Amino acid sequence: MTDLSDWRQRAADLDAAAPLRVMRERFVIDDDLVAYFDGNSLGRLPRSTERVLAEFVREQWGGRLIRGWSDGWVDLPVQVGDELGALIGAAPGQTVVTDSTSVCLAKALHAAAALRPERSEMVMLGTDFPTDRYLAARVADDRGLTLTALNPDTDGSMSPVSLAAALSASTAVVLLTHVDYRTGALLDLPALTAEVHAAGGVVVWDLCHSIGVVPTELDAAGVDFAVGCTYKYLNAGPGAPAFLYAAARHLPVVDQPLPGWWSADDLFAMAETHVPASDARRLLTGTPGVAGLLAVREGVRLAGEGGVEAARAKSIRLTELAIEVLDALGGDVGLAVVTPRDPARRGSHVTVRHPRARCLAQALTARGVVPDFREPDLVRLGLAPLTTSFAELIDGLEIVIQQAAH
Amino acid sequence: MTDLSDWRQRAADLDAAAPLRVMRERFVIDDDLVAYFDGNSLGRLPRSTERVLAEFVREQWGGRLIRGWSDGWVDLPVQVGDELGALIGAAPGQTVVTDSTSVCLAKALHAAAALRPERSEMVMLGTDFPTDRYLAARVADDRGLTLTALNPDTDGSMSPVSLAAALSASTAVVLLTHVDYRTGALLDLPALTAEVHAAGGVVVWDLCHSIGVVPTELDAAGVDFAVGCTYKYLNAGPGAPAFLYAAARHLPVVDQPLPGWWSADDLFAMAETHVPASDARRLLTGTPGVAGLLAVREGVRLAGEGGVEAARAKSIRLTELAIEVLDALGGDVGLAVVTPRDPARRGSHVTVRHPRARCLAQALTARGVVPDFREPDLVRLGLAPLTTSFAELIDGLEIVIQQAAH
Repeated sequence: MTDLSDWRQRAADLDAAAPLRVMRERFVIDDDLVAYFDGNSLGRLPRSTERVLAEFVREQWGGRLIRGWSDGWVDLPVQVGDELGALIGAAPGQTVVTDSTSVCLAKALHAAAALRPERSEMVMLGTDFPTDRYLAARVADDRGLTLTALNPDTDGSMSPVSLAAALSASTAVVLLTHVDYRTGALLDLPALTAEVHAAGGVVVWDLCHSIGVVPTELDAAGVDFAVGCTYKYLNAGPGAPAFLYAAARHLPVVDQPLPGWWSADDLFAMAETHVPASDARRLLTGTPGVAGLLAVREGVRLAGEGGVEAARAKSIRLTELAIEVLDALGGDVGLAVVTPRDPARRGSHVTVRHPRARCLAQALTARGVVPDFREPDLVRLGLAPLTTSFAELIDGLEIVIQQAAH
Repeated sequence: MTDLSDWRQRAADLDAAAPLRVMRERFVIDDDLVAYFDGNSLGRLPRSTERVLAEFVREQWGGRLIRGWSDGWVDLPVQVGDELGALIGAAPGQTVVTDSTSVCLAKALHAAAALRPERSEMVMLGTDFPTDRYLAARVADDRGLTLTALNPDTDGSMSPVSLAAALSASTAVVLLTHVDYRTGALLDLPALTAEVHAAGGVVVWDLCHSIGVVPTELDAAGVDFAVGCTYKYLNAGPGAPAFLYAAARHLPVVDQPLPGWWSADDLFAMAETHVPASDARRLLTGTPGVAGLLAVREGVRLAGEGGVEAARAKSIRLTELAIEVLDALGGDVGLAVVTPRDPARRGSHVTVRHPRARCLAQALTARGVVPDFREPDLVRLGLAPLTTSFAELIDGLEIVIQQAAH
């Protein structure tokens, strides 16, 4: 029988000392689960969001009706964008919350390519998330660019040296993902941004798996565009709207492919032709979903209350402990950690390879330990520092190891 | 003093006899308003939606977490699409609920143009809603098409004869709006669709101001693409997701410009390249907002319960009564009805011109009668058959007429 009692004691000590301990109480955790290892797919429900949404539905929509737009809904995409921007080192006026991540990504890629009309190539990692690969391929095709898909370094990462070697005077746009959705490898955002700029290119960062858990300074790094989702570590609920950041220096000339009435300079002028807003509203398109925006606002508020630095510190301890246990006990049951062991090189999930990964993930879910399966043979354990306790981690890992042996 | 007592008696009689009387009780109407004439901008809150959303937040998101996707969220865009399709004469498998109307419109216009690559022109009415004009201009520009903006006929409509005269062998795409957002003019969808097809073009219909209140048979009319929003007469809440219809005969080859992981044949295969779904999922892009989809489902259910034919019958009586009162009493106070007087030629709102329209709309809102102002001199009175009572109409019109005299 697997004995995790020593680790369990350490987990209790870590929980008792964790500065973020109190944050877990802000979330609904009255479910039937032993361990929820999927906060990087869908974050838990903040208790306050339940209240905010109920109040919105009854008082704002039901009570104020159309007047809600002038009461303040109309400003939510940029206001919540600014609030979210504070989590990623973006000064106000550069970030909006709107659409899906995929639609935001399409906007960013088109806008980035439009800044380098004389160049002919888009570059990304071939291992990136499908929607990134699909949309990059489409945007490249629509704009007559060749798309080069790089292989990552052996650890799933991409070093500045490796990237630099792949760039040239033809490189228009480089799409990079901060934390890899499978391996959890964390890229060096400032260094890679600098390499793209050294080659004269424009960079688009996908922050889906890093926002809220990895301190990020978009302005300081000089990032051009960034996108990401809010339903993972920002806990904004299934399909909550995404965010799109465009550096202030680009905004006055950003040319995104979906100019609707919400990106117009004067929303209600109903002008003859589209005069794009000179500010971040330029990144919008159609009417935003208000409930989703309010849920993002609440998730952002909680992430800010916990603090991204504190989240990162706890995230490192969580992933460290997970890797330690999996290295010690996983080998005998066919589990191999594929996430980088250097904490500076990984995000907030730990991924293991297992020959029966798909069945293992299903069996774990049936036993109340919810991970993610990722093709072809990976089980992903997302550890959300605001909500995952060390005790939960150990309880969950015990079942992971038991089940992997079956 | 304006005397509407005769009309008030008629309104009471009409309310007592109205088959849709009971539907009003399905909605929250405990607000501070004398009359809500903006259900065509933001529909009222269905009581059941409040329960559905609270249950979704607490039980589904909070309780089921990521498992909610396999419990059924994943199918909502097409399921709710099919349910909504029943309101517009669309057989299952052709309609999705997703994104904003603007984004859906961009997809439809690109996809429509891609069906006629050898043709060079897009045609629309120059009076259409801004987002339609902006996106048509952009899509035309991106695809090297010229955009021709037609003037409507004198009554704000567009007759089949007028349209036919504007079409040619160069016409690739025609974008038409079923009910004009300003005048309320209702176009003859089957006849105009036939004219577009006679010219060899592809038609995209914007149903924003008709869905739920004008019986529409997309399949029978042979419509190619249609889009519309759900927060007006479908009462799905501010910024609820839009719908996109593509005729089954086009679906296998629909080429829309935002292929994300949700439009892929196998969502979770994380395939190397994007193989588009052969069904309506092909129209999707990124992760859909689940709360919005559930609100659309509830709004669609209520519209179906009331019945679109019954809604149309009541809508005609409401607009008829409004026009009768405004014609009788409005002239003296500077109000001129611009909506077509033939009920077969109008949707469910009545628009009046007034020299101080902007101030009038503001003053009315302050007095608890909420209309919409539309540039430059229009006040729009949206009459939602599921929720607007005849008594509410008369009470509101009395204040409209009083206030217009000031």
